[in-house]
Amino acid sequence: MADDVRSLICDLARTFYGLGWVSGTGGGICIRDGEHVVVAPSGVQKERMSPGDMFTIALDGAVVTRPANEKLHPSECSSLFLKAINLRNAGAVIHSHSMYAMAATLLFDSEFAISHLEMIKGIQGYGYHDTLVVPIIDNTARECDLADALEDAILRYPSTSAVLVRRHGVYVWGSDWVRAKTHAECYEYLFRAAVEMRRLGIPTRFEGA
Amino acid sequence: MADDVRSLICDLARTFYGLGWVSGTGGGICIRDGEHVVVAPSGVQKERMSPGDMFTIALDGAVVTRPANEKLHPSECSSLFLKAINLRNAGAVIHSHSMYAMAATLLFDSEFAISHLEMIKGIQGYGYHDTLVVPIIDNTARECDLADALEDAILRYPSTSAVLVRRHGVYVWGSDWVRAKTHAECYEYLFRAAVEMRRLGIPTRFEGA
Amino acid sequence: MADDVRSLICDLARTFYGLGWVSGTGGGICIRDGEHVVVAPSGVQKERMSPGDMFTIALDGAVVTRPANEKLHPSECSSLFLKAINLRNAGAVIHSHSMYAMAATLLFDSEFAISHLEMIKGIQGYGYHDTLVVPIIDNTARECDLADALEDAILRYPSTSAVLVRRHGVYVWGSDWVRAKTHAECYEYLFRAAVEMRRLGIPTRFEGA
Amino acid sequence: MADDVRSLICDLARTFYGLGWVSGTGGGICIRDGEHVVVAPSGVQKERMSPGDMFTIALDGAVVTRPANEKLHPSECSSLFLKAINLRNAGAVIHSHSMYAMAATLLFDSEFAISHLEMIKGIQGYGYHDTLVVPIIDNTARECDLADALEDAILRYPSTSAVLVRRHGVYVWGSDWVRAKTHAECYEYLFRAAVEMRRLGIPTRFEGA
Repeated sequence: MADDVRSLICDLARTFYGLGWVSGTGGGICIRDGEHVVVAPSGVQKERMSPGDMFTIALDGAVVTRPANEKLHPSECSSLFLKAINLRNAGAVIHSHSMYAMAATLLFDSEFAISHLEMIKGIQGYGYHDTLVVPIIDNTARECDLADALEDAILRYPSTSAVLVRRHGVYVWGSDWVRAKTHAECYEYLFRAAVEMRRLGIPTRFEGA
Repeated sequence: MADDVRSLICDLARTFYGLGWVSGTGGGICIRDGEHVVVAPSGVQKERMSPGDMFTIALDGAVVTRPANEKLHPSECSSLFLKAINLRNAGAVIHSHSMYAMAATLLFDSEFAISHLEMIKGIQGYGYHDTLVVPIIDNTARECDLADALEDAILRYPSTSAVLVRRHGVYVWGSDWVRAKTHAECYEYLFRAAVEMRRLGIPTRFEGA
Repeated sequence: MADDVRSLICDLARTFYGLGWVSGTGGGICIRDGEHVVVAPSGVQKERMSPGDMFTIALDGAVVTRPANEKLHPSECSSLFLKAINLRNAGAVIHSHSMYAMAATLLFDSEFAISHLEMIKGIQGYGYHDTLVVPIIDNTARECDLADALEDAILRYPSTSAVLVRRHGVYVWGSDWVRAKTHAECYEYLFRAAVEMRRLGIPTRFEGA
Repeated sequence: MADDVRSLICDLARTFYGLGWVSGTGGGICIRDGEHVVVAPSGVQKERMSPGDMFTIALDGAVVTRPANEKLHPSECSSLFLKAINLRNAGAVIHSHSMYAMAATLLFDSEFAISHLEMIKGIQGYGYHDTLVVPIIDNTARECDLADALEDAILRYPSTSAVLVRRHGVYVWGSDWVRAKTHAECYEYLFRAAVEMRRLGIPTRFEGA
């Protein structure tokens, strides 16, 4: 299965580059494959990866298989990806540097909140009339230093499938890669909607007709 | 013909994904094929469908043929698609979650209205000097619960080829798939134009030179 | 040569669809081929044309060759395209329904004017310090009724390579298809720049440091 | 190696065209290949170049090899590209006409400055808490006349990997083509972020929580 997963990660990364989520080598995706997780290398052009560039890591982060190119290291997001996998049983985690995810963190304090938008229904556990809340954690100088704050947010918000990182981006997950990607697209839409609504002077939390 | 129609739906869905109309498994398209209608499954990635994933339904909604994958269900939009097909003799219906369609519903009360834009001429029955009106219905918690309000709007607005759904998106149709797609692109342009004009402080209804 | 020109028109039309210039069957391009002009049919999806769909017309507008499909008619823009060809010796003319071209006509009265932008240098005859002026003519109910106003604007503005049409779009030309496309891209940039500058409160005509 | 570099330049130029950096024949890229530099021709459509169109120049600007087409001249950016190569040992230089790079020069006086954004970490030598500064030089009527001002800015800002040109665009470099492209994508994100933040009324220089 790992071969297919490796190709899939390269394919999805090209799609995400087209969406503006992984420019400048930022952002990424991991997919769980049984008791292992396939992750991309750190600091590479995400739209130009090939299956042979991938790492396989265990659920405790230990490297199981690595690419032939000895200069490569596993993505710095790995410890963060593993938080969602181990605490939420995620089958895939996407990290996006989307402009709208970043901008959304500038418009809200500790929680992004939006309600009464159809795309909220695309997030597991949420209906149209619900207020979708996404915790926002502060950014740190090094990506690995985010792990504790991410774990804390995941534990404090048991129904979330995403955590925003201030002035940085967002981590999104789902029970498999399809649900993680669907979540990422729905959250992206909602972050953008919040920015557009702010520009148009419309509140993001519906107050009634 | 159904084989071609199935491929065509997959092809158009990829185009619509590129336009941002069907992200997060939302939105979709159906095409009439004689006395049947070809529809996509519910909740799947619209840009990654294959012809074998399609359903064929009768004009009363009964499933005629279904994909081998037993987990798939026909699109939740099916009952809405059939309203335009049965009440307006539509040959194809497109449901878009476009950000601009959604945003347009935030700028108007019960009717979207715009006039004096060349792209209005792309909508059947409208000329450059006409005011194009699109009814806006309120969203519901479940997509199938929209059917009555959609039918009501179609009957009250006999010259419309689209119905907006508040905080959700739009349903657009035409007498065949080419006209439905042309309509969808023209409406999309007009919804976006309304948002851009609002930002620039320009009224969407022309009041004279 | 006509075969190559026909393929080229299809290829360019796909590019222009991706740029948002020819959605909803609007907009188009013609290329001169000796004493004839190759034009696309009216009202077709511009990104899905094939070389066999093209018409060849004489410089007086008479149809020389036509596609096998008898339902097709030459583009309604043909009489407008011929104005630039006959009055300016244009080798190609592009008609774009770009949102930014349309929006630019809402921000200016009878003339679009912008200065001190590098991309102005991409327009034949203009330097960085020049003020680029593009005449704006009023739209008409039928595209063919624009011909007189377009001719008048071309004669009154002998140094322009484009004419904007209010609430509609723009006609752009050049001495061959490469220069016409380069002009179209530079004008598109400048129309968008004007919209962005207006939003940011920056005048489009530079008043000095 | 030169053959590969030539193909790579064509490939990257197509990507940059898709990003809106090199429309209207503007912008470009050069890549160092040993003691030579491969540059594209001046004034050509950057997304339609082929490897045979490339020039090879020496580090003093002398043409070493040229394309068969005698009408072609080396990019007008060549003397500017060589400044970054000779003064900073750059392995590749990218010149972008991005709308956001241009717009950023309208929002700042002599220096673009932004802080506390994750994408700053993508610029060599900068961390999340640093204020990234990019010098802005004034544009000139002819591209080659920018060389002295560019050299001056490079010498005055020893830690910069980019120089903005007012009302024009940006020059970005890196020690090889991958780092130059990564830099270009990160700067692009930061210029756009500054524009978006300005629109939302958020300062680009973080003043503390």
